[in-house]
Amino acid sequence: MERGRKIDLFDSTLRDGAQGQGIHFSMEDKLNIVKALDRLGIDYIEGGIPGANPKDTEFFQKMKEVPLQHAKLVAFGSTRRRDLPVEEDKGCRSLLEAGTPAVTIFGKCWDLHVTDILRTTLEENLRMVGETVAFFVNRGKEVIFDGEHFFDGWRANPDYAMEVLETAHQAGADWLVLCDTNGGTFPREIGRITALVQERFPKAKIGIHTHNDTGCAVAGAIAAVEEGASQVQGTYLGFGERCGNCNLSTIIGDLQLKLGYQCISPEQLRQLTRMASYVAEITNIALPGGLPYVGRSAFAHKGGMHVDGVYKNSVSFEHIDPSLVGNRRNILLSEASGRSAIAHRISEIDHTITRDSLETAAFIETLKEKEREGYEFESAGASLEILALKQLGRYQPAFQLEYFKILGEQPAVKVERSAMAIVKVRVGDRIEMTAAEGDGPVHALDVALRKALEVFYPQLHKMRLIDYKVRVMEGSAATASKVRVLIESSDGESVWATVGMSADIIDASWQALRDSIEYKVLKDQAAAHPPA
Amino acid sequence: MERGRKIDLFDSTLRDGAQGQGIHFSMEDKLNIVKALDRLGIDYIEGGIPGANPKDTEFFQKMKEVPLQHAKLVAFGSTRRRDLPVEEDKGCRSLLEAGTPAVTIFGKCWDLHVTDILRTTLEENLRMVGETVAFFVNRGKEVIFDGEHFFDGWRANPDYAMEVLETAHQAGADWLVLCDTNGGTFPREIGRITALVQERFPKAKIGIHTHNDTGCAVAGAIAAVEEGASQVQGTYLGFGERCGNCNLSTIIGDLQLKLGYQCISPEQLRQLTRMASYVAEITNIALPGGLPYVGRSAFAHKGGMHVDGVYKNSVSFEHIDPSLVGNRRNILLSEASGRSAIAHRISEIDHTITRDSLETAAFIETLKEKEREGYEFESAGASLEILALKQLGRYQPAFQLEYFKILGEQPAVKVERSAMAIVKVRVGDRIEMTAAEGDGPVHALDVALRKALEVFYPQLHKMRLIDYKVRVMEGSAATASKVRVLIESSDGESVWATVGMSADIIDASWQALRDSIEYKVLKDQAAAHPPA
Repeated sequence: MERGRKIDLFDSTLRDGAQGQGIHFSMEDKLNIVKALDRLGIDYIEGGIPGANPKDTEFFQKMKEVPLQHAKLVAFGSTRRRDLPVEEDKGCRSLLEAGTPAVTIFGKCWDLHVTDILRTTLEENLRMVGETVAFFVNRGKEVIFDGEHFFDGWRANPDYAMEVLETAHQAGADWLVLCDTNGGTFPREIGRITALVQERFPKAKIGIHTHNDTGCAVAGAIAAVEEGASQVQGTYLGFGERCGNCNLSTIIGDLQLKLGYQCISPEQLRQLTRMASYVAEITNIALPGGLPYVGRSAFAHKGGMHVDGVYKNSVSFEHIDPSLVGNRRNILLSEASGRSAIAHRISEIDHTITRDSLETAAFIETLKEKEREGYEFESAGASLEILALKQLGRYQPAFQLEYFKILGEQPAVKVERSAMAIVKVRVGDRIEMTAAEGDGPVHALDVALRKALEVFYPQLHKMRLIDYKVRVMEGSAATASKVRVLIESSDGESVWATVGMSADIIDASWQALRDSIEYKVLKDQAAAHPPA
Repeated sequence: MERGRKIDLFDSTLRDGAQGQGIHFSMEDKLNIVKALDRLGIDYIEGGIPGANPKDTEFFQKMKEVPLQHAKLVAFGSTRRRDLPVEEDKGCRSLLEAGTPAVTIFGKCWDLHVTDILRTTLEENLRMVGETVAFFVNRGKEVIFDGEHFFDGWRANPDYAMEVLETAHQAGADWLVLCDTNGGTFPREIGRITALVQERFPKAKIGIHTHNDTGCAVAGAIAAVEEGASQVQGTYLGFGERCGNCNLSTIIGDLQLKLGYQCISPEQLRQLTRMASYVAEITNIALPGGLPYVGRSAFAHKGGMHVDGVYKNSVSFEHIDPSLVGNRRNILLSEASGRSAIAHRISEIDHTITRDSLETAAFIETLKEKEREGYEFESAGASLEILALKQLGRYQPAFQLEYFKILGEQPAVKVERSAMAIVKVRVGDRIEMTAAEGDGPVHALDVALRKALEVFYPQLHKMRLIDYKVRVMEGSAATASKVRVLIESSDGESVWATVGMSADIIDASWQALRDSIEYKVLKDQAAAHPPA
C-alpha cells in the first residue's frame, strides 16, 4: 500500500447505473446528479451515450452550458463498426459532437465476443480499437479505453486480450480500464491479472470496472488498486445492470479512511452520507439502510451487548467514526436493544429514571407488547416518545378527535369494514351496478368491481390479488405525492402484475385493478380460442 | 483451491440477523425459517440466545418437538460472567437447558474489550473461555467457539488473541471461528491472518464470521476459506447488525458454482432463489432486486447491446446459467432495452412482427412516452401486454367503466382534487370543524386536520410532511392486508417520523398524522418552557 496515492474516481451512474432495473432519470435528474457528483470531488462523470437516444444527445448539448468545478464530463461510445472508416461511423460522430473533454471507448477483449457477437475477425477488431482510439486522441480528447470482458477474455485467450490493450495503448489511449463486464471474476484473480497488465504496460494508467454478480465488486476493485490501478469506475450507489456496479460511496470510504489512498478532501468526505440520500431521492428509491458508511443502519446498534459496548467505548463496535462520512450513530429501541438503551432514552424525558427503575421495566413490557402487535418504532422515534410520555403519565393530548369523515367515520361503527364503494359498469349493452364494503377504500373498490363483473365473467370468482404495493414517487410533496401501485394477481394457475400511477392512491389502484381484470379475461379468452 | 472440499454453512438469521434494523420475527416465523433452512441443506442453524428473552427460550422448547433432516440446531451464548463458577452462571444454564446438539460460545479476543467492556483481567478472560468451553464439551455438546473481534484483537495484541484461541482449543472446542465483529477488516488481511491461525492450529477446524461494513463480507469469507476455513457463518439474506452479515445466498453460489467447493446438493442449489423469496416474505421485506444469484434483477438485461448479446449467446453477458440457482433471465423493456428485446416481446403477440416492422418502431415510441410520464413497465408485464395490444389494434375492452364512487367520482370533475375530508376536533372546551379537498383521501385528511388545528396552534402552518411511505404487511390478503404508514414531517428546523398501522390505509395514516402533529406541539411547548 502506498499511503496517499491518488485514486481517480469515475462515476457511471448516468450510463451504467441507468441500466439497472427500475432506474430512470429525467433530464433534470441527470443535470442535478452531475452537479452533485462534481461538488463531491468525483474526477470523471460519464453522462450517457450520445446518439443512442435523443435524451442523451440533448443532455450533452445542455452540459455545454454547465461549468464543472472539478470533474471531467465523459461521453461513452464503442469502437467503430466493422469494415467502416471511423469518420463515417455515426456513433463516433455523435461522440465527437458531444463535445466532452474525455471519451470512453469500449472495445472487445474476449475473442468469443468478437466472433459471436460482433461477428467479425480478430484482426478487424484490433483495427477497430486502434483506429477509434487514434481518431479521438488526434482530436485532443482524453481517451479512456474500457476493455470490455477483459477478465473473461484473458481466461479464454490471454494473448489476444493483451493484444487488444496493446493496440489501444499504442494508439495513445490515456487509460486502460479492465472491465469485469459479467461480474464473475473474484478479487484474488482480479488482483493477479491486474498485476500482469501493469507489468506488461509499466507506463500505462490502469483503471478497474467491476460488477457485483458474486457480491465482490468492491473487493475486486480494491484488489486491482492494490496492484497498481489508479482509476476506479463505479456508480455512486452501486446501481447498474443485473446486480449493479462497484459502489463508489463504499469504496471511497474504504480507500480513503481505511487503506490510506487519496480520493477526495475530508470536507467532501463528510458529504458522503448526504450525497447518498440526495442521489437516492433523485432516483426515487429508498436508500438501503445497510449500505456501508452511508446507510441509516450503517452505525445502528440494537443488540443489548453492542449498545452497552458503544456507550462504554465507541471503538468497541464501530470500525470508523461515523462523523467522518457525515453519518451518525443510531441506537435502535426494540425488545432486543436491552435495558441500557431504553433507560438511556427515557431518562431523556425524566432524568430521575434509571436502568433499574420500575418505569424502565414497565416500558420494556409495553414495547414488547406493541412489537408483538406489529408496530416498529426503530424508524419512528416521535411515536416512541409519545408512547413513553403516555406510559410515564406525562402525556397531555393537544386536541381530541370527535370524528373525521372520509369513507366511513372515525371512531367507526365497525372497525373491520371502514369503507364503501359503489361501482357501475357496462359490458356491451348491459349495465351492472353494485356496492361493497371493504377494509379501506381500495379493498372496497376491488370487491365491488369484481362483484359487478362476475355477472359477466364468472371466472373472476377464482381471481385474487396476492400482492399490493404502494410506492410514493416524490418524497417532497408527501401525502400529495404521486403514488405508483403495483398489483400481483393470481387465479391459482398463473400470476400477473399490473401498474397504475396517480396523485390519488384510489385512482392509481383503480388503474392497476382494471388492467388486472382485463388481463384475466383476455388470458381466458386466449386459452378458449388459441390462435391457429 | 481444493476441488470438492466441503464447506459447512452456519446460518444466524434468527440470532445475528434479528439484530438488523427493522427485522422482527414471530415464533411462527422462526419455526418456518428453521424448517426451510434445514430443507436447503444448511449445516448449522443458530436459533437465538436462550434466557435472553422469553421468546428465544420458548423457541428452543418448541424446537425439541421439531425433527430436523440435516441441520444441527445451535444455541448462542457467551462465556460465563467474571468471577463466577460456570455452574452458577444463569446464561450458561439457559444455554444447557436449550437442549441443542451444538452451542456457540463467544469469547473476547480483543484485550481492549476485556479491560474496557468486560472490565476484568486478561487472565480471568482466559479462564472464562476455558471453563465455559470445557463445561459444554463435558456435557456432550458440539462447541463452536466464536472468537469475537478476533481480527481487531489480533491487530492490537496478536499474542493474546492467539492465546484465547489456544485456550478454547485446549478445552476441546470443536470449531475456532474467527469473527470480524466490527466488519472493518479487508479480505486480504482476513486471508493472511486465517493462514496464520491454521498454521498455529493445524488440526483445528476453522470458521469465519464476517460483517459487511466495508462492503466486503462475502469476499472476506472467501479469503478465509481459501486459506483453510471450513465453516462460513452468515445469514441467508445478509441481515444483521449495522450493514449486515456475510450473505449466505451469495456465498453458496460463489463457493459451489464458481470456486469448486461443496456446500449443498445440486437439487438444493436450485431452491436458492425460491428460498430467498420465502425468507424475504417471512421477514416482510422486499427482496433486493440486485442480490447476486437470487434477486429478480440478477439476470436482468436492459441495455440494448446486452439484450442483443444474450439472444446471440447467453454466456456473453451471464456469468452462470440462472437455472442452476432456480432463477431466470429477465429481459427488461424500456427505452434503453433496444429494438431486439421489444421486437422479441411483441412478436409473441403477433409473430409476423419483426425487428424492422413499423409496429416495433411505433411501440418503442409509445413506451418512451409512457416512461417519460413516469410509468415503469419493467415489473408490470401484464400492463405492458395490454399496452402492446392497444397499439396493435387488437385490444377488446372487457367492460366500460361508467363511474365508481369512493370519495369523489371516476371520471372525476376535477382530477387534481379527487377527495374530500371533514374533520371535527376539540381543544379544551372549543370545537373546530372544517373540511378540505385533497389529492386522494390521505392528503385531504392531512390538509383538513391541520387547517382545523391551526386555529389553536398557528405554528402548524410551518409544518409539512416530507415523506409518506406505505408498506403492506402481509402479501397474501392483498388489498385487505394490514398497512404500515411511516410519515416524516419537518418544520424547517427539525425532522421527525411517526408510524401508524391498520387494515385501512386511511386509519393507519390518521394515526401517524395525529402523532406527528402531537409531536410538533409538544416539541414547541418544550422549547418555550425548557425543564428546570
